[in-house]
Amino acid sequence: MSDTPFTFSIPNPGFIPSRVDNHITRRLSALRGQFLDQDAYARLLDREDTLLYAVNEIKRPAAAGELLMGVSIVHPGKVGKEFFMTKGHFHTVLDTAEVYYCLRGEGFMVMETPEGHPAVERLSPGRVLYVPPRWAHRSVCTSRQEDLVTFFTYPGNAGHDYGTIEQQGFCKLVLDTEKGIAIVDNPRWRK
Amino acid sequence: MSDTPFTFSIPNPGFIPSRVDNHITRRLSALRGQFLDQDAYARLLDREDTLLYAVNEIKRPAAAGELLMGVSIVHPGKVGKEFFMTKGHFHTVLDTAEVYYCLRGEGFMVMETPEGHPAVERLSPGRVLYVPPRWAHRSVCTSRQEDLVTFFTYPGNAGHDYGTIEQQGFCKLVLDTEKGIAIVDNPRWRK
Repeated sequence: MSDTPFTFSIPNPGFIPSRVDNHITRRLSALRGQFLDQDAYARLLDREDTLLYAVNEIKRPAAAGELLMGVSIVHPGKVGKEFFMTKGHFHTVLDTAEVYYCLRGEGFMVMETPEGHPAVERLSPGRVLYVPPRWAHRSVCTSRQEDLVTFFTYPGNAGHDYGTIEQQGFCKLVLDTEKGIAIVDNPRWRK
Repeated sequence: MSDTPFTFSIPNPGFIPSRVDNHITRRLSALRGQFLDQDAYARLLDREDTLLYAVNEIKRPAAAGELLMGVSIVHPGKVGKEFFMTKGHFHTVLDTAEVYYCLRGEGFMVMETPEGHPAVERLSPGRVLYVPPRWAHRSVCTSRQEDLVTFFTYPGNAGHDYGTIEQQGFCKLVLDTEKGIAIVDNPRWRK
């Protein structure tokens, strides 16, 4: 890891950064128990362990004054009525924020505090989202054709707590209904 | 200031964020002593106190886990052979980084450490620049027609130290020469 300034490009289309230190892919099997319609999940997984999203990270030291960066690409698709989404997480150091800049696609960031206060914000190209300290966050791709692509940055010491969300889910879901895209309460959510 | 998540857009063209908490403008008179050609500076200032750049900030609490954001717009132009540029600064909390995402234009980020190590990185649309902790930074617009527009984010507790650069300048200058754009040593730089 370099202690001197550096640049990298995020070429459009493709959005794979010209510098990648860590390439992460998450398939359907990595989100077991997260989607509402468990029968649809089992059927889909039986057919193929579909790629839901990829993250290309640029690494820096895990220090408070450093900033980690990366590009997240969530693919279009659904499990039952529920759109493809990321695992979602709190930061281990809860009092750390995150900034998202949307480069392509359409979707939502689903968020909540440890106390269970929800927030859902729309993402579209040219929009910036501020996730304040303490808010868990998951991105959801709602386009039928296009990836949801975001550039993100957050403090180097933040860390990831995936376990809390794996256990309790998010209190809001984003579904494709007959009346269009709907944000609904998660009936399986438990505090 | 909100403790709940929020979004804002950075519309192209224009690049004025849809949410602005602080609008800063810097004119020629604010950079007294910073440009190499002091006669050219005096002549230009005599004619008009030209707008060099504007910054639209989105504010957050001055805490380590928060992230401040904004859009910087440096206008094209020159003082003598030297391109229009920002004042440049160290962060008061020296061990804090900054991320720039270039939205439009062409230019450079001129940087240096407190020990006087220089770095100059090129900015163009779709490029991300990482300014590691400890590096002072100044953006320079080298296009003849277009603004240099960057979206930036840095830790909430970073603060600005403009005084050090005001006194000593940067050790590298970006000049428009007969052979093209040149990065040269600053003859007036002193440690």
